[in-house]
Amino acid sequence: MRILCISKSEKEIDVVAAAEHAALTPWICFISRLSTRFVGGEMSRMGFGPGQFFLLSELYAEEGLSQDELSQRVGVDKSNTSRALAKLEKFDLIKRKIDPQNHKVKKVYLRAKALKVRNEFRKIQRQWNTKLFKGFTKKEKAALIASLVKIANNAEAAFNQNEYPGAKVQGCPANCQKC
Amino acid sequence: MRILCISKSEKEIDVVAAAEHAALTPWICFISRLSTRFVGGEMSRMGFGPGQFFLLSELYAEEGLSQDELSQRVGVDKSNTSRALAKLEKFDLIKRKIDPQNHKVKKVYLRAKALKVRNEFRKIQRQWNTKLFKGFTKKEKAALIASLVKIANNAEAAFNQNEYPGAKVQGCPANCQKC
Repeated sequence: MRILCISKSEKEIDVVAAAEHAALTPWICFISRLSTRFVGGEMSRMGFGPGQFFLLSELYAEEGLSQDELSQRVGVDKSNTSRALAKLEKFDLIKRKIDPQNHKVKKVYLRAKALKVRNEFRKIQRQWNTKLFKGFTKKEKAALIASLVKIANNAEAAFNQNEYPGAKVQGCPANCQKC
Repeated sequence: MRILCISKSEKEIDVVAAAEHAALTPWICFISRLSTRFVGGEMSRMGFGPGQFFLLSELYAEEGLSQDELSQRVGVDKSNTSRALAKLEKFDLIKRKIDPQNHKVKKVYLRAKALKVRNEFRKIQRQWNTKLFKGFTKKEKAALIASLVKIANNAEAAFNQNEYPGAKVQGCPANCQKC
């Protein structure tokens, strides 16, 4: 959080010049850590573990994903994904079932308890989102999200190339139908 | 990473409409996780632990900070900051000294070994930053950084209010002289 601080009084030209060499990750990681602590804290208050909400969030959007697919979507390595899923299992929120089409693959589904708290969970996420976007216009929001999607794609491409040089890179990290 | 995916062919108006209800944190946390894994992996290759580079980064910018100041700047709670500092100590990268003006406070300084690898460390950060910003114009970079600074301030204010209702909120999370 030390690299760059832009005060309101600075002129655009100065901001552009300063941003040229500004590091992105201290800001990204700072926001990520506070978000994780906030949502995690709320999860704890609901009686669950604080660290697995990001997987739950993915599963609310789509069930029946394999552990590898979940890993890729959230950007967490396979062993940590497996540990997090074990905790969600412990809280009776998910179940893992062997894929009948490929016995080596386990697919992840939500349990009734998770479906019961879905609205409460979404409310927490919406509340935090609203707090983060305080003072933003619709257009500013759109520009920020568009830039973050681009950065996320760049990060995934760079990370995959670094981990597996020459590997074919996935396009949209959400693997949605639009891309 | 499921909430929103903006393809290049989408019109601005659609993006604005879609972003209105888009969640920010899945993108932020995804980029944060891959950044942490990338920089952490490079740190491991240098012979250090993978998880403490964010504190090292702060200390390269300013030495002599207390543990509480470090916690606040990086957005990590006190006990995790203390654990991360203990690891940096184990790798001979930092030392903690009692503040002569307040014996209850320990201040953190870099050791010779950390100063020796400073350039290598900065090179890793610059490389990752360049990869993330691939395809961005100077103006787009500036707009993104400015938005993230605003989000970081919002996150800090919301988090502090939630943790300590009624608490006075710090302005700039970097506490720099500009704000």
